[in-house]
Amino acid sequence: MITKLFKIKYPIIQAGMVWVSGGKLAAAASNAGALGLIGAGSMKPELLKTHIQKAKSLTTNPFGVNVPLLYHGVEEQLETCLQEGISIFFTSAGSPKKYTKFLKNHGATVVHVTSSPLLAKKCEDAGVDAIVAEGFEAGGHNGREEITTMSLIPQVVDAVSIPVIAAGGIADGRQMMATIALGASGVQIGTRFAVTKESSAHQNFQQAIIDSQFGDTKLMMKNVVPVRLLKNKFFEEVEKLESSCASKEEFIKLLGKGRAKAGMLEGDLDNGELEIGQVSAMIKEQLTCQELVTNLMSEYEKAYRNAAILLSKGG
Amino acid sequence: MITKLFKIKYPIIQAGMVWVSGGKLAAAASNAGALGLIGAGSMKPELLKTHIQKAKSLTTNPFGVNVPLLYHGVEEQLETCLQEGISIFFTSAGSPKKYTKFLKNHGATVVHVTSSPLLAKKCEDAGVDAIVAEGFEAGGHNGREEITTMSLIPQVVDAVSIPVIAAGGIADGRQMMATIALGASGVQIGTRFAVTKESSAHQNFQQAIIDSQFGDTKLMMKNVVPVRLLKNKFFEEVEKLESSCASKEEFIKLLGKGRAKAGMLEGDLDNGELEIGQVSAMIKEQLTCQELVTNLMSEYEKAYRNAAILLSKGG
Repeated sequence: MITKLFKIKYPIIQAGMVWVSGGKLAAAASNAGALGLIGAGSMKPELLKTHIQKAKSLTTNPFGVNVPLLYHGVEEQLETCLQEGISIFFTSAGSPKKYTKFLKNHGATVVHVTSSPLLAKKCEDAGVDAIVAEGFEAGGHNGREEITTMSLIPQVVDAVSIPVIAAGGIADGRQMMATIALGASGVQIGTRFAVTKESSAHQNFQQAIIDSQFGDTKLMMKNVVPVRLLKNKFFEEVEKLESSCASKEEFIKLLGKGRAKAGMLEGDLDNGELEIGQVSAMIKEQLTCQELVTNLMSEYEKAYRNAAILLSKGG
Repeated sequence: MITKLFKIKYPIIQAGMVWVSGGKLAAAASNAGALGLIGAGSMKPELLKTHIQKAKSLTTNPFGVNVPLLYHGVEEQLETCLQEGISIFFTSAGSPKKYTKFLKNHGATVVHVTSSPLLAKKCEDAGVDAIVAEGFEAGGHNGREEITTMSLIPQVVDAVSIPVIAAGGIADGRQMMATIALGASGVQIGTRFAVTKESSAHQNFQQAIIDSQFGDTKLMMKNVVPVRLLKNKFFEEVEKLESSCASKEEFIKLLGKGRAKAGMLEGDLDNGELEIGQVSAMIKEQLTCQELVTNLMSEYEKAYRNAAILLSKGG
């Protein structure tokens, strides 16, 4: 049970997201009975420290930090977290072998994010406490195999004996219920938490998600790092490069610096990089974290009752 | 209830698949309590007639025919079906407006396959009795929006008031349960039925599916007609064209004629086109249709009981 592992009320993790999930969102998610995560990927150690302290000032419930392992300065980030008393780490985008033992030696709970059953097994062997298995429909960076949540979760559940947290394609309680049916022990939700009152996603970005329609996101830049983006002017420029088989260097040049910050934190909807999941099309309003968690659990119960119909009548 | 609509025991449809689902498979699926479908896409009218008559000789349960609407000779196929007394039609790959009224006027039940909520609404307006909503992970031809089953089903369910049958990513009872949680009224299963004793998929092809691993399928030929393929020599040739931004004409030339038949019916694993879904990696053995349906329902019940744990304890 991941609720026991993290000492939380509901098996819901608010995903750590660059530029979107600071101390305010993490604390609000944790206060609502979920596990809040600060997304350290976009933070220098000093800023990360500020966000951890902010979260501590806003909640007495457990919260954690998501640390992508592919950037420079990972060790400084981890040290900052440990100094601030963080004991729940979600690591991603790198080898689980490198820091799991180090963090476990400091008494921390460690979860690694993966998009394949093979890597999930490696995470288990490296000693992590749980896995996040993330499908193709998820926002932001994604795996190269393009395996969807529906296909992925049972395969990861069958590959490991530690708890599996499902991610990708989960915006409501029906989808939460679906991943539990697949064998997951809980869910990690990004996109839906990005459109909350406590999210630091810019109001323009939140409105763009609310306005988005079916098919408005796509997995792009597969020859650099695959990332799911919301369609905008920048997206069109990426698409143009893709349809002309541009080189990796041309993509990196177009990407430049600060695109994600400009789009997601500062609200530049034309030139910014807008990372979001397929369920963007399902989000129709901004909620508070408390409203979101309450909705998820009541929708879950309703979906559960509906699913009973096949059992009683044989269809 | 789609069980009432089709007069079947379980809400399971065996997908109509080119070269794989003839009269033998459709009858076996129907005898097992599912709805069997003959895949007419690969059949001339005379052969279709033979398969319908074969199915009639093997079962007294209802079965239907899947007719893709994009080929020449569709009207002849539909006429053949009606003459042979077929009253359940699954149409796909074309406009639902064109033949739904014609078939309904002949007293038939009509279901149309779609991969978007917008088209689902158009199907409902055209008068179909139910929708198949098919996600990105499905085998064979697929939509351009790349929306996964997890994201797609709730959006289609919210868009229409007729029953929605989920397809794509369903190989076991956990996945069946997941799609019911998402709001589907039943499931359409292709890949898993392709690897059965009664399937007409060549033994080589069935073994290749059993041997396949995680990540061994991919959606290809997006600038012609997107189709999910199993990796083989032909796949590599397609991939080479894609990575060089080849023209549509070059793809069509490579594809040539008879690739799918060669691969799926005749077992040419090098030069054949092997259409299959992501769940290919989950299939470890050939079953009979009866074993498959029995497993699906017992796995469904188990998944249902497991999902109760969140309700009783709040996680």
